[in-house]
Amino acid sequence: MKNIQTLNLKTSKYIEFIDITSEVREYIQKQGLKEGIVIVYTPHTTAGITINENADPAVTMDIEEFIKRKVPHEGYFKHMEGNSPSHIMSSLFSASETFIVSNGELLLGTWQAIYFCEFDGPRQRKVYLKIIES
Amino acid sequence: MKNIQTLNLKTSKYIEFIDITSEVREYIQKQGLKEGIVIVYTPHTTAGITINENADPAVTMDIEEFIKRKVPHEGYFKHMEGNSPSHIMSSLFSASETFIVSNGELLLGTWQAIYFCEFDGPRQRKVYLKIIES
Amino acid sequence: MKNIQTLNLKTSKYIEFIDITSEVREYIQKQGLKEGIVIVYTPHTTAGITINENADPAVTMDIEEFIKRKVPHEGYFKHMEGNSPSHIMSSLFSASETFIVSNGELLLGTWQAIYFCEFDGPRQRKVYLKIIES
Repeated sequence: MKNIQTLNLKTSKYIEFIDITSEVREYIQKQGLKEGIVIVYTPHTTAGITINENADPAVTMDIEEFIKRKVPHEGYFKHMEGNSPSHIMSSLFSASETFIVSNGELLLGTWQAIYFCEFDGPRQRKVYLKIIES
Repeated sequence: MKNIQTLNLKTSKYIEFIDITSEVREYIQKQGLKEGIVIVYTPHTTAGITINENADPAVTMDIEEFIKRKVPHEGYFKHMEGNSPSHIMSSLFSASETFIVSNGELLLGTWQAIYFCEFDGPRQRKVYLKIIES
Repeated sequence: MKNIQTLNLKTSKYIEFIDITSEVREYIQKQGLKEGIVIVYTPHTTAGITINENADPAVTMDIEEFIKRKVPHEGYFKHMEGNSPSHIMSSLFSASETFIVSNGELLLGTWQAIYFCEFDGPRQRKVYLKIIES
């Protein structure tokens, strides 16, 4: 796949946020992209991509605890596989995010990190990275 | 509109998830796009675009039931039209998603399908498709 | 930063939705973009970008009230700064949105406006705008 890089991740918990910012930065450098955008896309229906703080690990721990409590297994769910909460979280967080690249650098805020979100782990997961030059 | 395709959809329920994956695939083939991205955008404030499983129809039924119960009509809502839950769902699911195209194919996961989300139906709705070549 | 414009915003409340549609339109005109996309990105972990109605101001007031009640401070939150609800809202609404530009115009629906979402104000905030020509 032209220009596309695949990240392979191994998650270890039911819900888990894995910081993939450095992998995205390396991809941009390897591609030599100076100006453009990068799409971070996960091809799973019980996972997602989000942006949040990585300075204090309690931030993603609080997000994890919050969604675990607010999106529980409900008696009315009919999906046979029993993981409807994971599918709901995936739609709420969404499977991709788009980032700006400028002067060869990922344009993130001081506190922003890019997270792969596991909502039905542990599993083997993939993330695709794709650049568009401006 | 250069390169842009409009899908016209007719929804039949208050909340409804309509699989538009084959329409997006046809658009990419018609445009002859080999490498790039495609933006799927709905111009409504009480609808959205999401990605989820289409193998078991119970998945989107469970999502539908969940959001209907979690985003009900609240006594404190002031919007005269009376459809604030629909506007809230639209912001939570978001009006667009971006997809990667590689070797002329939409790069979806095995279980992923692209859904138009009706949050205030039944109505006539539109979705815009737009490619960017890489 | 080539082609990138920074908007500087001053918010005045804990949660606030600021309509930035006209700033995005001016940026597109200034860049002379005829066909393509525009990425609207905020570099903060307690803010977001969303699309919703601007005809009746009660719509964003209802969204504001809803998320304030549904994402409150919880006793189990561990983040020292005490603003975990703001981080959760940021991930749910997401830090960016992508829009289609056609014939030099932002392709919005009749009722759609682009909002910067403050989830931890009042603060000084930034939004980055970036075009990709198709």
